[in-house]
Amino acid sequence: MSDTPTPDAPAHPTQALDDTVHQRARLGILAVLHESAKVEFTFLRQALDLTAGNLSRHLQVLEEAGLVTVDKGYEGRRARTWVRITKPGCTAFLAEIAHLKELIRRVDEGG
Amino acid sequence: MSDTPTPDAPAHPTQALDDTVHQRARLGILAVLHESAKVEFTFLRQALDLTAGNLSRHLQVLEEAGLVTVDKGYEGRRARTWVRITKPGCTAFLAEIAHLKELIRRVDEGG
Repeated sequence: MSDTPTPDAPAHPTQALDDTVHQRARLGILAVLHESAKVEFTFLRQALDLTAGNLSRHLQVLEEAGLVTVDKGYEGRRARTWVRITKPGCTAFLAEIAHLKELIRRVDEGG
Repeated sequence: MSDTPTPDAPAHPTQALDDTVHQRARLGILAVLHESAKVEFTFLRQALDLTAGNLSRHLQVLEEAGLVTVDKGYEGRRARTWVRITKPGCTAFLAEIAHLKELIRRVDEGG
């Protein structure tokens, strides 16, 4: 490892990360939603081991950013809350993944 | 994409992420430190485009977690603050990278 990095190094990959997407629980939410057309609130809560309150707060942040939609409905007589990723949500999630790949590339190449 | 993911899916990779390491600025700090034996505070601040106050707060979190050391000294007559990653810091950072690789693997394989 060099003693001191060159001061004119390009912007670090982590600078391109968006906190709205990068935050651990929200990253998990977007990742699960990216795998499925729609996901039910309870499943999402269990898959990510979040409390209902915590998941609701993160979904609100993502919904306000236009990255997910949250729809309430019924499945038979059972109330259901369905969560979907939006197109901008997919774009933001894949951008995060691309930045993380760049970070990992640098780490694997020894920085 | 399947309609609803299987409820007995294994723990999601994001669940293994450690907020102390995963937080965007701290991840950048550990990544830069991982590339170099030691890094001077001002360079770290510029490389990650952080304010001095912000960087100090994040370094305090990392130092309290035993992931970095912060040493004040002089280079000639100039006061210097040197930041180094510790062994546990390297371990935690590489664990984060491994979990991110698993997340990316799932995304690339379509989840």
